[in-house]
Amino acid sequence: MNNIVWHHHKITKKNRIEQLQQSPCVLWFTGLSGSGKSTLAGALEEKLFSMGYHVYLLDGDNVRHGLCKDLGFSDQDRVENIRRIGEVSKLMVDAGMIVLAAFISPFRQDRQIVRQLVDDQEFIEIHVNTPLEVCEQRDPKGLYKKARRGEIKNFTGIDSVYEQPENPELVIETHRQPFEKSVTQIVTYLMERGVLNK
Amino acid sequence: MNNIVWHHHKITKKNRIEQLQQSPCVLWFTGLSGSGKSTLAGALEEKLFSMGYHVYLLDGDNVRHGLCKDLGFSDQDRVENIRRIGEVSKLMVDAGMIVLAAFISPFRQDRQIVRQLVDDQEFIEIHVNTPLEVCEQRDPKGLYKKARRGEIKNFTGIDSVYEQPENPELVIETHRQPFEKSVTQIVTYLMERGVLNK
Repeated sequence: MNNIVWHHHKITKKNRIEQLQQSPCVLWFTGLSGSGKSTLAGALEEKLFSMGYHVYLLDGDNVRHGLCKDLGFSDQDRVENIRRIGEVSKLMVDAGMIVLAAFISPFRQDRQIVRQLVDDQEFIEIHVNTPLEVCEQRDPKGLYKKARRGEIKNFTGIDSVYEQPENPELVIETHRQPFEKSVTQIVTYLMERGVLNK
Repeated sequence: MNNIVWHHHKITKKNRIEQLQQSPCVLWFTGLSGSGKSTLAGALEEKLFSMGYHVYLLDGDNVRHGLCKDLGFSDQDRVENIRRIGEVSKLMVDAGMIVLAAFISPFRQDRQIVRQLVDDQEFIEIHVNTPLEVCEQRDPKGLYKKARRGEIKNFTGIDSVYEQPENPELVIETHRQPFEKSVTQIVTYLMERGVLNK
């Protein structure tokens, strides 16, 4: 009886799209520390969830202490950190989900690698373009102060570079408009793009 | 306007459970190469999907060439491989999904680590307990032959140990019953346990 061949109908992303009735993709929030990307991504997660979408937010909170807990903040470790997050995003997109990822992700090449991991149209880069001066003034966790005093090394914007996205799908300027407007801006974009259709 | 505090209602696993109407968990298939764990996990994925569950299968195909492509087959790399798969499973369970994971995962301690990553009751260890002799006779990919000839090193069951689960939730003996019966055995268990309720 071990010779009977079982005909497996592999469940594909297409099957999951039909089941979940949504277009899986990665909404990749990039920007400086204090730019507001995590807050924005959190608000968007809440909004899309309430609209009935199956969404999941990846951020430092659930990645740095788990999947990437063996990694530090050297350039090399940052690259590997983003690579793994990209691979997890890819698996989740394959699972049919809308993934929100909020990471400084300072290097253009790393963001490009993540973009190439998923299909065309599935990667939506959202540049939370808050100027360094504003981020440093907000300094919600006091990290800029520490970086300026040299207590934190390799801090993006201070002694480590942030490479601006060249062609992001969206640019959000949180310092120029009320918070709710930034959320609406993203939702509107996703509707126009056809990602949201419920 | 940057001083307005936005009250974020974080979307929790509980919220997702309500949205998806299912009990997230990890079905961890462990066993020798050729034991039938991937085939069983694939059949179960298909079955649960057809019943309306949101499931996802992690196996060598979608992990070894992506998230874990930097890892080899040394003991140390095997440990890290399982750790990462465990962390991804944890994220997917947090996202509300039923995760199926099919990996040899030969070391008891590593499986224990994954078990402890998720909540009690969320880890279901399924030992696909096909004897080495049967696996070697099946040898679907010709790997045992190569291992016996010394062309593959660290091959589980030949020159690398497989530590039997001590208290797995389920033991499946694919060599003693027709394939469909093994699938039904797992589905029945999940129903009795309350994981399946649709």
